[in-house]
Amino acid sequence: MASLENGQIRKAEIGKTTNPMVSGLLCDMYQFTMAYAYWKAGKHLDYAVFDLFHRKNPFRGEYTIFAGLEECIRFTANFHFEESEIDYLRTILPPTCEDAFFQYLQSIDCSDVKIYAIPEGSVVFPRVPLIRVEGPVLIAQLLETPFLNLVNYASLVTTNAARHRQVAGNEKILVEFGLRRAQGPDGGISASKYCYMGGFDATSNVDAGRRFGIPVRGTHSHAFVSSFMGLEEITNRSLQYSSGRQVCNDFVSLTQEWLRKLQAVSSLRGYFRETNRSELAAFISYAMSFPTQFQALVDTFDVLRSGIPNFCAVALALNELGYKSLGIRLDSGDLAYLSNETRKFFCIVEDEFAVTGFKELIITASNDIKEETIDALNKQGHEVDSFGIGTHLVTCSAQPALGCVYKLVEINKHPRMKLSQDIEKVTIPCKKEAFRLYGIEGYALLDIMKGENELAPKEGQRLLCRHPFSESKRAYVVPQRVEQLFKCFWAGNSGLPQEPLPSLTEIRERCKAQLKAMRSDHLRGLNPTPYKVSVTASLYEFIHSLWLSEAPVGELR
Amino acid sequence: MASLENGQIRKAEIGKTTNPMVSGLLCDMYQFTMAYAYWKAGKHLDYAVFDLFHRKNPFRGEYTIFAGLEECIRFTANFHFEESEIDYLRTILPPTCEDAFFQYLQSIDCSDVKIYAIPEGSVVFPRVPLIRVEGPVLIAQLLETPFLNLVNYASLVTTNAARHRQVAGNEKILVEFGLRRAQGPDGGISASKYCYMGGFDATSNVDAGRRFGIPVRGTHSHAFVSSFMGLEEITNRSLQYSSGRQVCNDFVSLTQEWLRKLQAVSSLRGYFRETNRSELAAFISYAMSFPTQFQALVDTFDVLRSGIPNFCAVALALNELGYKSLGIRLDSGDLAYLSNETRKFFCIVEDEFAVTGFKELIITASNDIKEETIDALNKQGHEVDSFGIGTHLVTCSAQPALGCVYKLVEINKHPRMKLSQDIEKVTIPCKKEAFRLYGIEGYALLDIMKGENELAPKEGQRLLCRHPFSESKRAYVVPQRVEQLFKCFWAGNSGLPQEPLPSLTEIRERCKAQLKAMRSDHLRGLNPTPYKVSVTASLYEFIHSLWLSEAPVGELR
Repeated sequence: MASLENGQIRKAEIGKTTNPMVSGLLCDMYQFTMAYAYWKAGKHLDYAVFDLFHRKNPFRGEYTIFAGLEECIRFTANFHFEESEIDYLRTILPPTCEDAFFQYLQSIDCSDVKIYAIPEGSVVFPRVPLIRVEGPVLIAQLLETPFLNLVNYASLVTTNAARHRQVAGNEKILVEFGLRRAQGPDGGISASKYCYMGGFDATSNVDAGRRFGIPVRGTHSHAFVSSFMGLEEITNRSLQYSSGRQVCNDFVSLTQEWLRKLQAVSSLRGYFRETNRSELAAFISYAMSFPTQFQALVDTFDVLRSGIPNFCAVALALNELGYKSLGIRLDSGDLAYLSNETRKFFCIVEDEFAVTGFKELIITASNDIKEETIDALNKQGHEVDSFGIGTHLVTCSAQPALGCVYKLVEINKHPRMKLSQDIEKVTIPCKKEAFRLYGIEGYALLDIMKGENELAPKEGQRLLCRHPFSESKRAYVVPQRVEQLFKCFWAGNSGLPQEPLPSLTEIRERCKAQLKAMRSDHLRGLNPTPYKVSVTASLYEFIHSLWLSEAPVGELR
Repeated sequence: MASLENGQIRKAEIGKTTNPMVSGLLCDMYQFTMAYAYWKAGKHLDYAVFDLFHRKNPFRGEYTIFAGLEECIRFTANFHFEESEIDYLRTILPPTCEDAFFQYLQSIDCSDVKIYAIPEGSVVFPRVPLIRVEGPVLIAQLLETPFLNLVNYASLVTTNAARHRQVAGNEKILVEFGLRRAQGPDGGISASKYCYMGGFDATSNVDAGRRFGIPVRGTHSHAFVSSFMGLEEITNRSLQYSSGRQVCNDFVSLTQEWLRKLQAVSSLRGYFRETNRSELAAFISYAMSFPTQFQALVDTFDVLRSGIPNFCAVALALNELGYKSLGIRLDSGDLAYLSNETRKFFCIVEDEFAVTGFKELIITASNDIKEETIDALNKQGHEVDSFGIGTHLVTCSAQPALGCVYKLVEINKHPRMKLSQDIEKVTIPCKKEAFRLYGIEGYALLDIMKGENELAPKEGQRLLCRHPFSESKRAYVVPQRVEQLFKCFWAGNSGLPQEPLPSLTEIRERCKAQLKAMRSDHLRGLNPTPYKVSVTASLYEFIHSLWLSEAPVGELR
């Protein structure tokens, strides 16, 4: 947790953004043209309220995990323009722009801004603001692009990770393997961070491990196997016993002996004849480097005819020296079939040689896995214990963008509303408060938004909840518990109390707990039940009267 | 172009990587476990050759644009481990790992590595290596993940941009708008860079503009419009004439006059009645800030009933003061219909008031545009001059990952080959050279790979070209021109001549020229003709004899 002083995070402490790519210029050009226009019109200090929200849950699902808030707060704390940045802005704005504007830009920061948000790692729903930004319109406007950039992908990939966890179940080990297919270096680093937040156990990305303290995992690649020509390459053949008290002088021969014993087992005869020698050399060499953590990639030549027997020979030799092996990784082929056959092989080995731990060797699968693959494997029956998931997880191939938007809802206390020919794009005006109402069984029933000056919902009190746009959709609710969703995460110089920024682990735990408080039919993969997002009766009336007053009247001819 | 001295880029000059996110730890964990195992086996100096290549073109297309090379070369030049990084590695590798290994890691760099590659911005095809890395296996292995990370997304998004350019045609203005939906900050910055490389004209991303000198564009958002309540907000109503010799004291009234004149035009009567006042105020205010570059977003309330008439009133007032406006942006609705109606409106205005330039006002569309949208608009007929493309472009939603891989093809001069149950995953062994053969009409006919010691193809000389895996697919070719594809971009300390790194603009031009040299049927969107990638007869024989010697023989029971 970031350090606190009377509930206030000191600016200097959170100001150091974790991401050196994020400067005040990481922004769409139109934010600067608007900034100039606001300033020129003398409107730059108008007090604006912007809502950041999404219109639709991703992945054909009915929930989203909100992520990226910490990065937004750090960006806010650090928000300013360097002289060199201002100099660049001068070159891209028209020469007619006045110098005093650039001087003004150089003077601004987020002292006068307040940021309210739903805590990071929460389960969230469309139209309920994730972040509310209040402050001078020029500055609040300049936060739009960076905030959207920092929230959109973070929330998308966290949600994707949570969905993979849902389908895999809590017992499986999920490791994120996406760095090589991620969208650039920082895409990879963000992916690792947010997949961990969404429920993954570890990452292959060393840099992310170092930055965020995420457990790091890895074995070897096909290239390692191919780099060996044969057993004669292993020149130092001695390996210490696990006890440290004895040395095996020829671990290579010991492994070869075990391979011969495996070849003699009648119930294994169908599986294999000669195994590949360079693969065996690679496995022996790897095991001698990591005798306490031996794990082998078994599909360089042929999983059942070569990889698994070679692995077992090495693991049995290690076992003789007192070392327990970790398991194997499959990176191609029919994962259900291969994992089942592999488990059978392990069981035969354990029974045949009266060794322990072989039946429980970890089978990792890592070939092009996605949510649907895991679901299909579950239906077929499989013996995979651990999934290494890369491409589809980090690129969110099922839906590679979350459409969060940032809309003006109030200026100088006047409610504002964006109309649109697409009803989906109409925004809910006003500075709002939002609440989650829980039912008798402890599950979340619905979210409700109210205007700033209305009374908050209360436990045990009946409340009419209305769909914001559909007249006939409404319901009375008597909440057993009421949770206020927004908290102040950036108070600027207002002196208001400010929420501390939780650690990544705390956010990860929050995500887990929040998912547990949702009814499972909202979370399921196929045809999930939509979760209700509503407004109070009085906010409903207000929205619709404002709408009528703003929309132009048509004329049919 | 990076500065040169006798054809050598000095290491210090390109060593400063442009991306502070890229350290030696931006790597999969298994590269480090393998590094330890190579070192422990005394194999770390084995001379390895790795090929980086893709197996399939993206977006159901038949070509790819290669990008990311400069970043790989900068990474190579800068490759080393800081003490703090080594300290972290000690914590994630097992405690059994020997100290001398970490000391060794701290001593390495890429002096002994050589990198050959196809120039960045080239049109490339599956299986032909994009990059060949040669050097000590431990070091070459540690380049795998960063290189894949730097090439995969770069090539994917550059290809996507090139495809958007193909479908839009050369006359349209294409602006990349993706920052807010990109996968993180650096995802956004990379996207802007590589979209420009692939043929876009500009970006909305200010930071990318500054870093890479890409033209930057932007107007205003809906929030700017909504932030105005009415005309009374505009307190300073005076605007200088374009000539600078006169001042209009009440630009607001002038605009209102023009709006009344528009309302009186009989042929416009069907379009609109009263327009939205806050929109008019916003447009006037924006125009007064940018009289030389007035461009308005017209769909906050209603495009034809409010946005376009308001825009025209302001543009006519500006015109009276000698200013030419830029045009409008549409961000919702039926873009074909709205752009056609808008053009009609502009034509009526030009004819009715005998003003010039209104017929050619630029119509920009920016709502969820993708390749298919442009194609559909082309078929329907539309009047859009400029596309602002974000989400689908930068996230490559049609296929969000390119599957480049990095495979060992030779070690200590021994050819290596990765077999697989998936034929797609079988690699072509050996250190290879690759050539593009051109036909009589100047178009590229096919690419061919040969082993290191074979003679190169020659102009006018008949050559048998074979499909690498399909026995019956072969053709004789008499090339009119032969282009050697690989050049040495990193010579390490070898003293070999090294290609200079071209500038972004030069790469962009290369990409354009390369696409021009391809037959259009390879490039088209629907059912494109596959481009042939072949091997020499002698390489074919070699691959297949190696394959037979490595693959285990099955036994049916």
